Amino acid sequence: MATLCGSDLKTYLGQRIEPTPTVLGHEFVGVLETLGPGTSPRDPQGRLLAPGDRVVVATVASCGLCFQCVRGLPQKCESTGKCKYGHEPIDGPHGLWTGGLADVVLVAPGSGLVKVPDTLPDPIASTASCAGATVAGTLRVSGGVKGKRVAVFGAGMLGLTACAWARWAGALDIVALDPLSERLETAARFGATATLRADDPESPARLVHLTGGRGVDLALELSGHPQAVARAIASVRTGGQVVLIGSVAPGPTVALDPETVVRRCLTIRGLHNSTPRDLLHATRFLKAATMFPWAELVPRVYPLEEVEEAFQHARDHRPPRVAVALTGSVAQANPAR
Amino acid sequence: MATLCGSDLKTYLGQRIEPTPTVLGHEFVGVLETLGPGTSPRDPQGRLLAPGDRVVVATVASCGLCFQCVRGLPQKCESTGKCKYGHEPIDGPHGLWTGGLADVVLVAPGSGLVKVPDTLPDPIASTASCAGATVAGTLRVSGGVKGKRVAVFGAGMLGLTACAWARWAGALDIVALDPLSERLETAARFGATATLRADDPESPARLVHLTGGRGVDLALELSGHPQAVARAIASVRTGGQVVLIGSVAPGPTVALDPETVVRRCLTIRGLHNSTPRDLLHATRFLKAATMFPWAELVPRVYPLEEVEEAFQHARDHRPPRVAVALTGSVAQANPAR
Repeated sequence: MATLCGSDLKTYLGQRIEPTPTVLGHEFVGVLETLGPGTSPRDPQGRLLAPGDRVVVATVASCGLCFQCVRGLPQKCESTGKCKYGHEPIDGPHGLWTGGLADVVLVAPGSGLVKVPDTLPDPIASTASCAGATVAGTLRVSGGVKGKRVAVFGAGMLGLTACAWARWAGALDIVALDPLSERLETAARFGATATLRADDPESPARLVHLTGGRGVDLALELSGHPQAVARAIASVRTGGQVVLIGSVAPGPTVALDPETVVRRCLTIRGLHNSTPRDLLHATRFLKAATMFPWAELVPRVYPLEEVEEAFQHARDHRPPRVAVALTGSVAQANPAR
Repeated sequence: MATLCGSDLKTYLGQRIEPTPTVLGHEFVGVLETLGPGTSPRDPQGRLLAPGDRVVVATVASCGLCFQCVRGLPQKCESTGKCKYGHEPIDGPHGLWTGGLADVVLVAPGSGLVKVPDTLPDPIASTASCAGATVAGTLRVSGGVKGKRVAVFGAGMLGLTACAWARWAGALDIVALDPLSERLETAARFGATATLRADDPESPARLVHLTGGRGVDLALELSGHPQAVARAIASVRTGGQVVLIGSVAPGPTVALDPETVVRRCLTIRGLHNSTPRDLLHATRFLKAATMFPWAELVPRVYPLEEVEEAFQHARDHRPPRVAVALTGSVAQANPAR
């Protein structure tokens, strides 16, 4: 099963350009069918994996030896053998088999593989491979959230996962901001302690008021909207930190005041994709954080032959995720909703 | 003795507004004359200080107990009793006695005091209290420079100290950028392994070429010029870090591309002022790094009654520092030059 990531949708809609022809889909879960000769894949903790194991796959397969790999950015591997699932042209070195929207995916050497806990259903497990792992990486570079006042800009799949994880990890306040009321209602079920309409001009002032009068310790920008980037930077206290994650498509620049960054001792970090260890932490988190209604984030599952309809549903209705499964008919993954 | 910091000069020239009337000067060295009743001042390592000790004083006296103090930003102390030397109005709670351009300074409670090593002459020791300590803080928040490729934007007092410290601490490459050739010649004597004219449109490409083709690991922006801020952000490799320090006066904004920050996993940090421990590290560095010709950075010492001429000299000739001493006539601190 694959789940359609926001960046898949942006590529489908032509808002970002990837090499074509390609097979999209980098957020997926599958069963390890067979191993190549002499292959003994291991998870990030060194545990052997075997055919029959249900696994999620890190977005980028990396060499482990190059400049970026040894500096902790395997997702920016410089090897020509690097494989980014769902982002490779089918006439590239890895051939046709790199996209998750397919019946078979060829797992490239250097892939990060994590066995999925039995209690995690496919639609939730699938979201670990991009959204979950990216949130894990975000919290890693943030130095943790325990006791912090956190603002989450964007309440899509990434933002909802971030709210839930921040709550689970002991954040003091978690304020979700999004222009859609329905998403904010979901955020409240996923750990947000307060919600604000992102398009309300009063929201920046209310956010400061809600978080002790100084601004938040940590702002996570997961929407990619330039206005949200500017507001995230404006929302943090002196000495606070902003992590930008959502801006993965071309867009307008944001006016940055260097004097503010200096005088307020701000930190602004960008994070793109994640590491295999982030993926491991994401699956552990999803297994543990059973207090949140994960199933409602992936309300529909389309069969692979209706992938076009799946993208159109994602475009028209913008649920956090739409799933595409190898077999079966259009299903309500969460009949209760 | 006080040395005129770039921000003193900006205030003198009206490029930044501070409360007036005031006594300027926050970079100074002096002899501890007498202690208030019941006072036993200690340095950041807890060693007692006594009358007769020659000391430098951290820029901000802080309470040690407030929100910012307990979070490692004593320079952003929220106490109403906070004292920022050379930045307080004379009708404020600390009275007339907070500026270093004076015959007497009243050391406020909560001040960071560091005894100056005997081998450090006054003009060099004085620069520790703002420039040196700020560079110490910069390297602290950067996570060190050993083995790194470093770009230093601005070769004034801060930039020259940063070049020297980076060389002393084992940076791999240290490229200094400044529009003034004379400053770049000085940078070469202060540890820069290469220098580039900041106003040369070829410099960004040459900087990448000089530093292994990927860009630098760490860019330090010490000039405060908006173009330098933009170029510093553009100069770092994927996964690299930019520390902004120089932008301490109002100026134009810089166009930030959020997608670049995300995809290149950049970190942009601002730092303003420093901590007492940074000041301690700065005096130790200046004592140890005797391979650099420090004396040439403070070529002239004016007597206090000629402070106006000292500012005019700083404005017209822009040496790294001009010193103002309690007594004596205009002197060449470094007759060799």
